[in-house]
Amino acid sequence: MKTLEFREGALWLLDQTRLPHEAVLVQCVGYQDVADAIRTMKVRGAPAIGLAAAYGVVLAAQRLAYEGIDASAFDRGMEEALTDLAATRPTAVNLFWALERMRRVLAETPPDVVNRLRHEADALLAADESANRRMGDYGSELVPDGANVLTHCNAGALATGAYGTALGVIRAAHDSGKRVHVWVDETRPLFQGARLTAWELQELGIPHTVITDSMAGHFMARGRVDLAIVGADRIAANGDVANKIGTYGVATLARAHDIPFYVAAPLSTVDLATSSGRHITLEERRSEEVSSPAGVPTTPAQSEVANPAFDVTPARLVTAIITEVGVIRPPLPAGLSDVASRSNR
Amino acid sequence: MKTLEFREGALWLLDQTRLPHEAVLVQCVGYQDVADAIRTMKVRGAPAIGLAAAYGVVLAAQRLAYEGIDASAFDRGMEEALTDLAATRPTAVNLFWALERMRRVLAETPPDVVNRLRHEADALLAADESANRRMGDYGSELVPDGANVLTHCNAGALATGAYGTALGVIRAAHDSGKRVHVWVDETRPLFQGARLTAWELQELGIPHTVITDSMAGHFMARGRVDLAIVGADRIAANGDVANKIGTYGVATLARAHDIPFYVAAPLSTVDLATSSGRHITLEERRSEEVSSPAGVPTTPAQSEVANPAFDVTPARLVTAIITEVGVIRPPLPAGLSDVASRSNR
Repeated sequence: MKTLEFREGALWLLDQTRLPHEAVLVQCVGYQDVADAIRTMKVRGAPAIGLAAAYGVVLAAQRLAYEGIDASAFDRGMEEALTDLAATRPTAVNLFWALERMRRVLAETPPDVVNRLRHEADALLAADESANRRMGDYGSELVPDGANVLTHCNAGALATGAYGTALGVIRAAHDSGKRVHVWVDETRPLFQGARLTAWELQELGIPHTVITDSMAGHFMARGRVDLAIVGADRIAANGDVANKIGTYGVATLARAHDIPFYVAAPLSTVDLATSSGRHITLEERRSEEVSSPAGVPTTPAQSEVANPAFDVTPARLVTAIITEVGVIRPPLPAGLSDVASRSNR
Repeated sequence: MKTLEFREGALWLLDQTRLPHEAVLVQCVGYQDVADAIRTMKVRGAPAIGLAAAYGVVLAAQRLAYEGIDASAFDRGMEEALTDLAATRPTAVNLFWALERMRRVLAETPPDVVNRLRHEADALLAADESANRRMGDYGSELVPDGANVLTHCNAGALATGAYGTALGVIRAAHDSGKRVHVWVDETRPLFQGARLTAWELQELGIPHTVITDSMAGHFMARGRVDLAIVGADRIAANGDVANKIGTYGVATLARAHDIPFYVAAPLSTVDLATSSGRHITLEERRSEEVSSPAGVPTTPAQSEVANPAFDVTPARLVTAIITEVGVIRPPLPAGLSDVASRSNR
């Protein structure tokens, strides 16, 4: 079962809102279908959002080319698609990175543009998987045999093109023969931990225990957590990390217990143009996600509700960032600018 | 609407599992009804559990007296009731404290025992409310005008005989004319914050915002939380506090942000016979509370789930304990033993 796949001229997405109960594929035939799927979190996870958007650009070009309109109408149509896709979710930078990659192809190659865009999206997808596997190799060295690893949200195969970032590290450690047990934060409000991470771990045969987000501190205090690994939606130049709401709490608790806190993310998540976490736009989502968990109202209808979807973990709480080109240790600003300049982006 | 009330020879409980959607009174005619209501959390909150159990003892005595059995059968029956009621939930010490108070009355007063037990339970109920109001007066001085107060779980009128402990402090501050806004942790797994605390605040007209437990750190980091106040299920002699799971995380985050962390609890919650939090039995509840939030399954059926209902906050993270005889500041062990010896328990 693939997180996303382009075939028969359409993008097929595994509908993540219906896991683990049903594995339903959603067919996207136009870029608006992709934009809707991103907005409603049928596809989620920073790398997967970027890849889905790249294929959204392919769908837009395909449609416009089929309509046989003139070059300037094509350009206007593509601009609209790029703008709409970029407006779906504000926090994860991989979305903007992937759209920028597609925009460059558009600018360079007027003839045969649909195939060239398709080729670029396929290349991004393939690169994502191989980056994750390299990240897994680097990261698994940080996971001791017998480790209890806590993770928050889902940074697995479902959040990427394949394999996973934080969960890729755990998976690589498991595959290398180490005994690993995972504490899975359920991750309110949308339960990506309980629904998606637990499902992936179950499929992979990796021992795990689902807990509410509020239990992480308790198990740390009891010595039951050896390290924490999470993914990221955007990493600022100074090393501040935007990730799923609750990540900052995990990082603060990890520090209070002297537990290493690792972030696993591809270089496409690093945004050197953003100097610090203060400048990252944090998405605020519908209040019903909080007031009606799993669709059942818990909260009085008149009560106010807040629903920031992300928080920022300051660089000082990050033990290391695991990337496809190696493990970056503090000082993170120097390490990030170094790998970014060496990498072929 | 009262949390619990004894009338017409029965204990009437407001069913807290059905709030805020329905206000349903449950009638308990035998002590087993009370034991079931405590176990299933129709009544919850350390002080309310103690009071309900006290009335459970009244119901047991009433039934046995009505049956007109001999003294030794009466004693055996009462012993069984006390044992069963004590076995309902292990963590909150108020339960054992209230049962001990009832046991003393039983030991001293063979004739007219039902009325004497009823009188004792009524006295505990009245004392609980007046203790909460005194706690509110002491505690409200710690709440600045314009304060943003974070609370976890429900320590309001629903958790007590009336008025509330942590919420009583917030209420007293509000009633004294201070502007107060409350951040309400939803409190997974059973949503006592979203369902009960938000409902009480709504009824009282106190501004509040419901958040997931994982958002507390985010709002602290943004300077939006001025203090945290929670209740307690048991306070050990050294000042360690057992309270709803997630409390320890709030306390750790509060310390990391230099935010005062207060515990509001009556002296009946202080257990000098328990030297430290290490010795407090923490209840583990059914895994479905975690794996099926609000009754809807989120988690793969084969996944392991943990569900500790309480955690322990070490004394070093507690800024002060607010009691009915005053505010206890560190060193907490000396303060607790001092008020316990001065109080008429």
